Amino acid sequence: MVTNQGLHPFDPITPEEIKLAVRILEATFPGVSLRYKRIDVNEPIKKDVIAYIEAERLRRPLPPPPARLLYVLFHRLDTGAFYKAILNADKRTIVYAKELPKEVQGPIDIDEVAGIEAMCMKHPAVLAEIEKLQLPAGITVCNDPWMYGTDSDNEDRRLFQCFMYLVEVDHPQNNHYSLPCKFSPVFDAITHELIRMDYLPGGAGFETTPTQPWKPVKTVQYAHDLLGEPLRNDLKPYIVQQPEGPSFSVIGNSVYWQKWRFRVGFNAREGLIIYNVTYDNRNIFYRLAVSEMTVPYGDPRAPYHRKQAFDVGDTGFGMNANQLALGCDCLGHIKYFDGYLNDSKGNPVEMKNVICMHEQDNGLQHKHTNYRSGAATVVRNRQLVLQMICTVANYEYIFNYIFDQAANVELEVRATGILSTVPFDNENGETVPWGTNVGAGVMAPFHQHMFSLRIDPAIDGFKNTIYYEDSVPMPEDEKNPYLVGYTSESTVIRTAGTANTSVDRHRVFKIRNDNVTNPITYKPVAYKLMAAPSQMLLVSKNAHGFRRAEFATKPIWVTKYQDDELYAAGEFTNQSRRAEGVETWVQRKDNVENEDVVLWHTFGLTHNPRIEDFPVMPMERISIMLKPDGFFNKNPALDVPQSSQLFNKSSLHPEEQVAACCAGASSAGSKAKLYKRVD
Amino acid sequence: MVTNQGLHPFDPITPEEIKLAVRILEATFPGVSLRYKRIDVNEPIKKDVIAYIEAERLRRPLPPPPARLLYVLFHRLDTGAFYKAILNADKRTIVYAKELPKEVQGPIDIDEVAGIEAMCMKHPAVLAEIEKLQLPAGITVCNDPWMYGTDSDNEDRRLFQCFMYLVEVDHPQNNHYSLPCKFSPVFDAITHELIRMDYLPGGAGFETTPTQPWKPVKTVQYAHDLLGEPLRNDLKPYIVQQPEGPSFSVIGNSVYWQKWRFRVGFNAREGLIIYNVTYDNRNIFYRLAVSEMTVPYGDPRAPYHRKQAFDVGDTGFGMNANQLALGCDCLGHIKYFDGYLNDSKGNPVEMKNVICMHEQDNGLQHKHTNYRSGAATVVRNRQLVLQMICTVANYEYIFNYIFDQAANVELEVRATGILSTVPFDNENGETVPWGTNVGAGVMAPFHQHMFSLRIDPAIDGFKNTIYYEDSVPMPEDEKNPYLVGYTSESTVIRTAGTANTSVDRHRVFKIRNDNVTNPITYKPVAYKLMAAPSQMLLVSKNAHGFRRAEFATKPIWVTKYQDDELYAAGEFTNQSRRAEGVETWVQRKDNVENEDVVLWHTFGLTHNPRIEDFPVMPMERISIMLKPDGFFNKNPALDVPQSSQLFNKSSLHPEEQVAACCAGASSAGSKAKLYKRVD
Repeated sequence: MVTNQGLHPFDPITPEEIKLAVRILEATFPGVSLRYKRIDVNEPIKKDVIAYIEAERLRRPLPPPPARLLYVLFHRLDTGAFYKAILNADKRTIVYAKELPKEVQGPIDIDEVAGIEAMCMKHPAVLAEIEKLQLPAGITVCNDPWMYGTDSDNEDRRLFQCFMYLVEVDHPQNNHYSLPCKFSPVFDAITHELIRMDYLPGGAGFETTPTQPWKPVKTVQYAHDLLGEPLRNDLKPYIVQQPEGPSFSVIGNSVYWQKWRFRVGFNAREGLIIYNVTYDNRNIFYRLAVSEMTVPYGDPRAPYHRKQAFDVGDTGFGMNANQLALGCDCLGHIKYFDGYLNDSKGNPVEMKNVICMHEQDNGLQHKHTNYRSGAATVVRNRQLVLQMICTVANYEYIFNYIFDQAANVELEVRATGILSTVPFDNENGETVPWGTNVGAGVMAPFHQHMFSLRIDPAIDGFKNTIYYEDSVPMPEDEKNPYLVGYTSESTVIRTAGTANTSVDRHRVFKIRNDNVTNPITYKPVAYKLMAAPSQMLLVSKNAHGFRRAEFATKPIWVTKYQDDELYAAGEFTNQSRRAEGVETWVQRKDNVENEDVVLWHTFGLTHNPRIEDFPVMPMERISIMLKPDGFFNKNPALDVPQSSQLFNKSSLHPEEQVAACCAGASSAGSKAKLYKRVD
Repeated sequence: MVTNQGLHPFDPITPEEIKLAVRILEATFPGVSLRYKRIDVNEPIKKDVIAYIEAERLRRPLPPPPARLLYVLFHRLDTGAFYKAILNADKRTIVYAKELPKEVQGPIDIDEVAGIEAMCMKHPAVLAEIEKLQLPAGITVCNDPWMYGTDSDNEDRRLFQCFMYLVEVDHPQNNHYSLPCKFSPVFDAITHELIRMDYLPGGAGFETTPTQPWKPVKTVQYAHDLLGEPLRNDLKPYIVQQPEGPSFSVIGNSVYWQKWRFRVGFNAREGLIIYNVTYDNRNIFYRLAVSEMTVPYGDPRAPYHRKQAFDVGDTGFGMNANQLALGCDCLGHIKYFDGYLNDSKGNPVEMKNVICMHEQDNGLQHKHTNYRSGAATVVRNRQLVLQMICTVANYEYIFNYIFDQAANVELEVRATGILSTVPFDNENGETVPWGTNVGAGVMAPFHQHMFSLRIDPAIDGFKNTIYYEDSVPMPEDEKNPYLVGYTSESTVIRTAGTANTSVDRHRVFKIRNDNVTNPITYKPVAYKLMAAPSQMLLVSKNAHGFRRAEFATKPIWVTKYQDDELYAAGEFTNQSRRAEGVETWVQRKDNVENEDVVLWHTFGLTHNPRIEDFPVMPMERISIMLKPDGFFNKNPALDVPQSSQLFNKSSLHPEEQVAACCAGASSAGSKAKLYKRVD
């Protein structure tokens, strides 16, 4: 805690720093109005950080902290030019400010969508289309501005495509996604010009028609008070109590829990970042964060072909993070972390409770019963969870980093929220092969969610090696006389590049430290990645969508660490023509054996919607784990105390009264009639 | 509840029925002593059950219940012959009793292992080997009898291989698996003869040596009071309270929870069975159970080549189920179910608390925040968990069936317990390519755990169709002008057979009812299987281990339902020469389209042990889910009330005192010295 500002190198940006950045830039561009897209911390220089955090870990005198750098993206409002600046917050100086090429579009800023949305709703061409709908009284129109995506190598304008919806009820949770319109204006975000009025296909084909009067259908609502049916009344309270308080302690953004120590980071782009993870004071990870996510849609028709959001690079999980509420988003004893963003004028914006942290019980961690004596060792699996929830217009992502007592770290992603929908005249039984009807007049197209987890490892030190092990049958020879032998085959990734997962070979990726040998296994200490083998990007190699998201075409990427290489699809994804990310960096073909390496894991969901995912989607879970593998000398959770009734205070279910029956088959009659028997 | 005995057709066996079976058989074989291997319910005839449970569901007058049949396996002690009998409990008569072929070995009975174990410890040949160890005072020897496995087509004797271990401390939780001996007697379980004294390889090769004096090494202990190090003292209590009681109700073995209704079954072989699953009174599954599990080992050397346990067929999850303790194995408000087994004399054995049931909170079920209004719908994911824990000598399996409010059913398997170990002289840095050193003188060989989940579906009725959908790019033609289109390709399994999983094609298996169409999607109502794509069996096609477990060579099997086809590797797995299970039944090539079908999913772990898995293994989790897919008209959990602080009563973490620090880097010095820096 001894930088110039009393900050730790991994601390998120402060409101004072946001104000400082604005002051420095105002002084640099006197008399020029600037629109601030991003004001954030620039990731500190790793080699300087390592000296600092190693001194902390080893309780040695601290060296000078690394320079505190700030990262600013802005538009000059006089010329429209887009700039990137790096500032030195310690010296209160500008390191550089450079104008970026015309084709580079910065991310969406915190005020931009609302601005486009309002402009759209006032535009005469839009009002003229709305007029043609001949809406009944009380039905209004709204729009969701979308990043324009890319279908040309010659588009330098900053564009938004507004998808239009009907609003049936004036209610803060009305589900307009249930009633998509068939026209969609495209605007220039800088000039505010209407570029084009797109018309959306109405049927199963590519044909579009001029806007017609609306044929009324009911909204499929999700809000409890719009459901028009009674809520369940048989769910009983479930209360978590920690009468002695939690098992964690927190100082600033530093967390201590069950031999773990790490720092909670937050920025506008990635949101939650986990820094400097140690267990029992041994280094494990330097930095963990979801570095990118892309969502390409499978509907082949214009303008849907451009629907490919990059929810980290185009907008930012930090910018879209929910401010969480006690007792709603987490359960139990909750610690919240706040963050700061900037608005487009450069004012700090406080983001309260963007990360919640709590303990949870996850069933059993380990158990063994000695069958002779009946004596059982039972240890429960207490976990520490850090949660961030991001709303990207219609959709929600829930990210949970879960630490446990056996030195595992899990990243659990839950996809929820509302499907992105399109209009579809489906009243006569029409279907499309690339989507699911989710209501009258509305279809949810197939799409993929492709995440990149960036793992910057520090397995007992900062020089590591990545390799994979396959399980393979032994040859059928004299060394395998009974034909049951199998063994593992190791492949070291020596040069920056990619690798595939393989279920059939039970391929496991590991990160080891070749300089530290486990005294019992006689192998280098290691952690393994329990990957989530996933279908990769389905768009054609010849599509823009492929070139923009090459990170999503391979599950494993290995690069040599370089400062500023943080984002799998590159620094600027909005309207990008191609990525400048991992696919570029691996081309250096750096040696990555016993080096400062970065492991990027691409995983995701091919999401062909179920009707059950509408109007709000039951969460779909994906889990990645990082587990010690030869890192310790034995199960590191052995010293967790026995699970006992004295500690857990469970209750025994009393013998049931017969009167308690009948809860089951209640609403049978009402539901059954929704289904028609064909035969 | 109107059968002759007042039992429901799905109720587990009662002690009275066990006594009745013995009376019937004593009358059938007067004067002959019998050793009872199994006395259990024989699965009732499905067509008769359907008439009964459909009347229950539709609240119609109940037809006569199906015949209550009992299943008995026994040995005649006079001839040694092995019999199977079916009894009619309603009529108190024998249906048949047939002598089985000589090569058929029944499962291990509840008294058998202890008998072999005791006999082994008294055998002069074993005592002579122990003598050669020249053990210091206080060190004793024990043994774990193992199913013999199979390496011959001519072995008709009932054999056990006893693996011998040293016992360092007279403590009910001493970990003898840490000190395996290098000799291993094989016994005939019927004649009690010593068949052979096997000697185990001592080094990395195949060579064995006569028993030598023991070179003392320390046991790697797991028991808390044998650890010799302090336990963690910073874990704070975490208490779950349900002040208004649970949300479930139970009548007999019938469970009602959040629109779910099902029956809890229990038998000696499969343990926990879930019967007659409905949601909102619509049929979903007739029966769910883990039908088999096999664990082949990859160490190519004798006698390890025969180590291939079938933990369902050779012993039984019910027989090995733990009797669970309040506050240890489950947390919160717990309902327990009991079961009954028989001992070898035919006495009923009560198994208290073999299944626990409780609710748990699993984070968020769905969330959407309207970014314009800030209004959030937040619904937590309450789950109902049924848990069974089985100890198979050294190893533990935890099975959790998890029901949620969005009509999903999950089977979560956790593998824990103690690795099966072998002796290995590894004091000079020796390693083997098929195992991991886990301590001084002890190695844990690679192995696989292959499970078969038997899914007997009833998706809105008892005639279903199984198919799979792949996600594939659309051809690059005029219907896909932007090259982004993708669609799904359906393949119906029309004839009994197998299928492979495919991550690259995002293959999803579904069960549909072709007779019931969803009124919005216009597709048949369906459930999908979220499979766990796994590496299949690694043993050679030419090995006994392959022929015995063909179910584990393909992830998906589809058969037409037939009574008595319940077990993937067949009825008798112990010392089997080949399976008579799914691989046989699919050969009938039955039509399985719109038929009474059964879906068998094989999944598992290729388990190349980590040293962290010793001396007791942090649980390794595998999850399978069954999810509605076009079964409902919308998210079935929409009517779950909003998550709120009023209901959840969470606590806010107070601002931390600086004094709370220092929990992190405590034992750094002591651990660091265990690792030697190579460079």
